[in-house]
Amino acid sequence: MTAVIHVVPSFFYDIVRAGDPLSGRRIHMDMKRIVTIGGGTGNFTVLSGLKDSGHDLSAIVSMADDGGSTGVLRTELGVLPPGDVRQCLVALSRQSELLRDLFTYRFEGGRFEGANFGNLFLSAMEKITGDFDAAVQRTGEVLRIRGQVIPVTTDDVVLVANLKDGTRVKGQAKIHETRLDTDSLLSLEPKASANPRALRAIADADLVVIGPGDLYSSIIPNLLVEGIPEAIRGSAARKIYIANLMTKPNHTDGFHVADYVRTIERYLGGQTFDAVVYSTLEPTREMVAYYAHEGEHPVRAEDDGFVSSSYERIGAPVLKTQVSVSMNAHDPLPRTLIRHDPVAIAKVLVERCL
Amino acid sequence: MTAVIHVVPSFFYDIVRAGDPLSGRRIHMDMKRIVTIGGGTGNFTVLSGLKDSGHDLSAIVSMADDGGSTGVLRTELGVLPPGDVRQCLVALSRQSELLRDLFTYRFEGGRFEGANFGNLFLSAMEKITGDFDAAVQRTGEVLRIRGQVIPVTTDDVVLVANLKDGTRVKGQAKIHETRLDTDSLLSLEPKASANPRALRAIADADLVVIGPGDLYSSIIPNLLVEGIPEAIRGSAARKIYIANLMTKPNHTDGFHVADYVRTIERYLGGQTFDAVVYSTLEPTREMVAYYAHEGEHPVRAEDDGFVSSSYERIGAPVLKTQVSVSMNAHDPLPRTLIRHDPVAIAKVLVERCL
Repeated sequence: MTAVIHVVPSFFYDIVRAGDPLSGRRIHMDMKRIVTIGGGTGNFTVLSGLKDSGHDLSAIVSMADDGGSTGVLRTELGVLPPGDVRQCLVALSRQSELLRDLFTYRFEGGRFEGANFGNLFLSAMEKITGDFDAAVQRTGEVLRIRGQVIPVTTDDVVLVANLKDGTRVKGQAKIHETRLDTDSLLSLEPKASANPRALRAIADADLVVIGPGDLYSSIIPNLLVEGIPEAIRGSAARKIYIANLMTKPNHTDGFHVADYVRTIERYLGGQTFDAVVYSTLEPTREMVAYYAHEGEHPVRAEDDGFVSSSYERIGAPVLKTQVSVSMNAHDPLPRTLIRHDPVAIAKVLVERCL
Repeated sequence: MTAVIHVVPSFFYDIVRAGDPLSGRRIHMDMKRIVTIGGGTGNFTVLSGLKDSGHDLSAIVSMADDGGSTGVLRTELGVLPPGDVRQCLVALSRQSELLRDLFTYRFEGGRFEGANFGNLFLSAMEKITGDFDAAVQRTGEVLRIRGQVIPVTTDDVVLVANLKDGTRVKGQAKIHETRLDTDSLLSLEPKASANPRALRAIADADLVVIGPGDLYSSIIPNLLVEGIPEAIRGSAARKIYIANLMTKPNHTDGFHVADYVRTIERYLGGQTFDAVVYSTLEPTREMVAYYAHEGEHPVRAEDDGFVSSSYERIGAPVLKTQVSVSMNAHDPLPRTLIRHDPVAIAKVLVERCL
């Protein structure tokens, strides 16, 4: 990219948020470094909310997806999985709505049925540069993202679930269909080494945010990359977990917030989180009944395990009250209707976690 | 696009070309409006050469292609043909080489084999905007093109060859395989109306450049669109034809420059060209022998028909002496080795045709 782009220093937004500097109010010049770790729609929500916060953002993204459009590209073109990275890029993009819609567009018809345009963009960039991490950075320039998106690893890995009975289930898409219990242990094959950009971002962070997101597809695959758990635990950053709103059948049935925390900390190698954010709003009874048909139930926060834990509990109205079926009109994939509110998430992170 | 881009006024380039304004030399502020009409590699060459000339460029592009990657997209996604437009956009792009390479990239493997990325970009844009002409303009913004690219029509048309024996051959790809003679008459089905942007550009032009390019796939399909021949003949612009270097088997066997001019003017409705540019350089004997195997032979300029015509004949060294096999490393499609030189073409147009 040779485009002449005026980069507005991020602290500018702090000044704007603080009101008129001439009014005598204190001007916040304290830009913080926030690192999110995850993948999928949950991460999209957090990043969308934080985009205009004026803080320095780094999104570390899971690289174990092998389903859907991403799976087709991995198999047929031999590329690394673009899907989760693409969602983060779109979330942080300062480009026009049209260009963001383009990156979310899915082709319909013939051999291209279901192919996501943004994924094709990243895969073509990877082929041309021969380097997925460079492809992500160049695509970020085209999308004029605020902050940076960092694939947690650029090794070509497969997610494996090692079940209690000795069965090994290979591939995120297959694991998605498999009944797991808390004794199931996930791993990556082959072992993956961390993207140095990810390690640097975590080390320099003021705040590390994990979740919300699918426990076994979006969160834990990041923690299976060598060096990542140690980097998180070794960082001076405040570490926050944002709890999911709904359980997932076969994976987190009956989970309370504390169960998510315990499972994640098992992969982190010990107690890590300083605080956990959970929703003080509940979905409507109708919505809960609708989700129950799919085997999904609200995640409860008020259990004993949670109350007795040493984490700070931060309850906040982070449930979105106005919901829509799809991320945009051109994305025909069905999305859950019970969602986090990006603005409320950003507010609780900036005002109560930093 | 919301990118803040500093547009350098085009006349700036005239100043630069004229040397130091303080030296007392006349400063050329005379930006002219140049319209090219064509499609394919020939058009790419002319536009690449003119891109930095400082003149106002409009590329009017044929919309009858139905072969290759473009044909697949038309059939399977129901879009308008993006291929020729995409080549013009890349030719006029001021973006990084990486982004231009991306738009020329062809996928290899699986269901995406042979799919051109730039074509997919335009087709996705068309789907999102619901308007091919708008898609071309938005894509032009992403590629930061100098000038404008104008599809000659946005009607969904098929090229038809009506042969002397009454046979009708439908589709540009099929016509490509068919033996035509000078009595064969081409038409579009259904009738197509001109893009108003094309009519405006032609009316306002100082110079209209037709060719080089495949006679029946790149040049004539533009002239079959209702209103285009009248607009060209009615324009006060100087009208130039740039002659092809090689004949095409089954279509233009034995053609001299004058045969191309006669055929084109038949579709224009009468004598039109003020001047014809032809190459004073000949390809090497080895190259000619190589092409002869494919049934392609050098186009001769020095025949009686040409000498006796009323056009100004402009001979110039427009043959490229250094040639490469493909347009770039990521485009595996074979290209002809005997090519026009973009710099020499631009020089003759600016210095001898304006």
